[in-house]
Amino acid sequence: MSFLDEVKFNDQGLVPAIIQDATNGQVLMLGYMNRETLEETVTGDHPVFWSRSRQQRWVKGETSGNTQRTVEVRYDCDVDTLLIAVEQRGAACHENYRSCFYRRINRDGTTETVEKRLGNSPTR
Amino acid sequence: MSFLDEVKFNDQGLVPAIIQDATNGQVLMLGYMNRETLEETVTGDHPVFWSRSRQQRWVKGETSGNTQRTVEVRYDCDVDTLLIAVEQRGAACHENYRSCFYRRINRDGTTETVEKRLGNSPTR
Repeated sequence: MSFLDEVKFNDQGLVPAIIQDATNGQVLMLGYMNRETLEETVTGDHPVFWSRSRQQRWVKGETSGNTQRTVEVRYDCDVDTLLIAVEQRGAACHENYRSCFYRRINRDGTTETVEKRLGNSPTR
Repeated sequence: MSFLDEVKFNDQGLVPAIIQDATNGQVLMLGYMNRETLEETVTGDHPVFWSRSRQQRWVKGETSGNTQRTVEVRYDCDVDTLLIAVEQRGAACHENYRSCFYRRINRDGTTETVEKRLGNSPTR
């Protein structure tokens, strides 16, 4: 796929992918993809990520059931960031929040949780 | 600010910041911040970025007038990504699109522009 030759992967061979809720525009998470998982993402029906900490391929919801279905894949002017609209089942965050961005930092440096957990216990 | 000690900057000392339109949820761009520009961002009234290519501090709209005003700063579960809601004036993209994510990649590898330019010429 010639598109993959245009993508500017970083020093680790990765590109960040912003995952957005297709239904309401909420930003759910940021993941990373290498060339192989990006190709899988573009040609498949759900995003496939590369875990920097575990150095392995992963798919959201494989163990938790909180799966994602790809609606649209976009890329930016510099071809170094992806934006993927998905249908998200349940929580995108392993802490069981709908979005990983559940905390706010205020101007004075204080932080606070501004979203509600979907359930009691964290999930994978 | 103790929050800054929690942030996991990458090997280059940077953290990605997703910039989102506060009015409609559109994802506008992804920028990077180092510790200094992140502190400026949190305590100030607009995002401040670090340019990886030019290795210097930059503020959107300094030359184009397409400025951003910070509405809310959030951070993710792993404390390695920021999500910043802004009021965006004009185009966020230097190619003069409202959002940098103006192109789509289809499953068959073809790409297409799916947004309209705000004006004729690219801006900085």
